[in-house]
Amino acid sequence: MLTKNKIKYITSLAKKKFRDEEGVFLAEGAKVVGDILPYFRCLMLCGTKEYLSQHPELKVDEIFEISEAELQKCSQLKTPRDVIAVFRQPTPTPLSGEVMREELCIVLDGVQDPGNLGTIIRLADWFGIHHIICSEDTADAFAPKVIQATMGAITRVALHYTNLTRFLSSIPQGIPVYGTFLEGENIYGKTLSPNGLLIMGNEGNGIRPETQAYINQKLFIPPHPAGCETSESLNVAIATAICCAEFRRQLHCQTR
Amino acid sequence: MLTKNKIKYITSLAKKKFRDEEGVFLAEGAKVVGDILPYFRCLMLCGTKEYLSQHPELKVDEIFEISEAELQKCSQLKTPRDVIAVFRQPTPTPLSGEVMREELCIVLDGVQDPGNLGTIIRLADWFGIHHIICSEDTADAFAPKVIQATMGAITRVALHYTNLTRFLSSIPQGIPVYGTFLEGENIYGKTLSPNGLLIMGNEGNGIRPETQAYINQKLFIPPHPAGCETSESLNVAIATAICCAEFRRQLHCQTR
Repeated sequence: MLTKNKIKYITSLAKKKFRDEEGVFLAEGAKVVGDILPYFRCLMLCGTKEYLSQHPELKVDEIFEISEAELQKCSQLKTPRDVIAVFRQPTPTPLSGEVMREELCIVLDGVQDPGNLGTIIRLADWFGIHHIICSEDTADAFAPKVIQATMGAITRVALHYTNLTRFLSSIPQGIPVYGTFLEGENIYGKTLSPNGLLIMGNEGNGIRPETQAYINQKLFIPPHPAGCETSESLNVAIATAICCAEFRRQLHCQTR
Repeated sequence: MLTKNKIKYITSLAKKKFRDEEGVFLAEGAKVVGDILPYFRCLMLCGTKEYLSQHPELKVDEIFEISEAELQKCSQLKTPRDVIAVFRQPTPTPLSGEVMREELCIVLDGVQDPGNLGTIIRLADWFGIHHIICSEDTADAFAPKVIQATMGAITRVALHYTNLTRFLSSIPQGIPVYGTFLEGENIYGKTLSPNGLLIMGNEGNGIRPETQAYINQKLFIPPHPAGCETSESLNVAIATAICCAEFRRQLHCQTR
C-alpha cells in the first residue's frame, strides 16, 4: 500500500537536497518511465490500475497501485500521467582525456533553466554526444523538469558536475575548445574538429570570463541577413543545437 | 493610482479570451518591455519607483507606480521584474503569394508549448524570417510565456493564425513546401530553396495528415552516427532551428 510516508518521500524528491541524499530521481509518464526502465534501477514505481494492467512484467524493486488523487499529490507535472517512478541516479565514470581526444563533448557553464538543460541532453543524444560537463551552478540534471524534457536521453548521456575551472585547467594539451561569441568567427567558414569541447554559457550572462580563458576557437552563428536588426542572441539550447548540427554536418561531408 | 480594478484587468490578461476581447497583451521586465516599446502602442505601464526613475521619458498612454506587493499580484512570472506593461496586439496584413515566392516562411501545425513557440519566434527573427503561419490550435503568441520567450522578437515577426488547410490549398503553384519526417531525405544532401514554407508539427503528434498532403519536400535531420540507438526525435524548436540554420547556410554559401 502507498502509505502517507511513501507519498511524502516521493514529493520530497522534487528538491535537489533530498534527491542527492537518497541518490535517486523521479520520472513520470509511461513514455519517459518506459525509456528509463531498461537502463537504471527502479526502486519504486507507482502506477494507476490501468498502467499496471498494461505493464504486467515490470523489473522494479517495489510496485504500488496509485489512485488519481494520490498521483495528483505526488506528481510534479501540471497534468499528472499514469505512472511515477523513483530511479537510482547513475554515477558516471570520471571523464578521461582519451574521450576528449576522440569525441565531441558539451560543457555547460551555468545553464539555469531546467527546460534548456533537458533539451540540450536530448539533442546531445541525437547527435551522438555522450558526455556533458556541467559547472556546479548548472541546473540539476535530475530535477523532474529536466528528466521530462530529456525524453529518456538521460540514459545515454553522462552528466559530469564539476568545478569547471579546475576541469578545464587539467584537460590534455591540443584539445580544441569551442565557444560561441557575438565577435566569434562565422561557424560556416570554419573547419570544425570531430573532437573537443563545445562550451555554452548561462542564459543571461553567457560564458564566464574565467571559463572563456580556456576557449581557443571562438564561433559565431551568423544571423540572416548579415547586419540586419534582429534578436540580440539565440536561446542557449537553440545555439547548442545549431553548433552540434554543423559539427556533425561537416563530419558527414568529410567522411562520405 | 493603480486601482483594484486595474490590477484585476491586468491579471485577466493572462487569459486568451480577455486578451483577444481587448486586443492587447502583457510584457514584463525592463528588457522585454523596452524592446517592444518602440514598435507597439503601450496602453498601460506599471513600473516600480526605481524603474520609473530610470526611465523618465516613456511613450505610453498611462503610467502607474507599482509596489512590490501589487507587482506580485499582477505578474505572470515566478520572479516578478520591475515593470509590467499592456501593449496593443499588432494586426498583421494578410500574407500575399508574393512573400512566399521571395521569402522563407515558417508554418506551425499545432505547436502547443508556449516556450517552444516563443523560442521559434526568436530564432525566426535571428534568421530573418518575417512570417509565421499558425494553425488555429497553435499556442497563442500573445500569451505571457510566449512574449517573455521571444525576447522582443515579436515586434519583427508577424504571426498569422488561420485555418491551415484552407491556407495551404490557396498558395501559389510552384512554392516549395518543406516538412521534417523520420523518413525524409537527409537535409544535408538536398539543395534548399531560398523561399517557400517550412512546416513544423505538434510536439507529440507531428504534422497532421491533412497538412502533410501539401508537403512536396520531405526533410530529415540525420542523427549521429547514422543508425545508432538515440532519442526518437528532436524537440520542435530545436528541429526548426537546425532546418532554418541549414536554409541560411546554403543561401550564404551560394551567394558569396
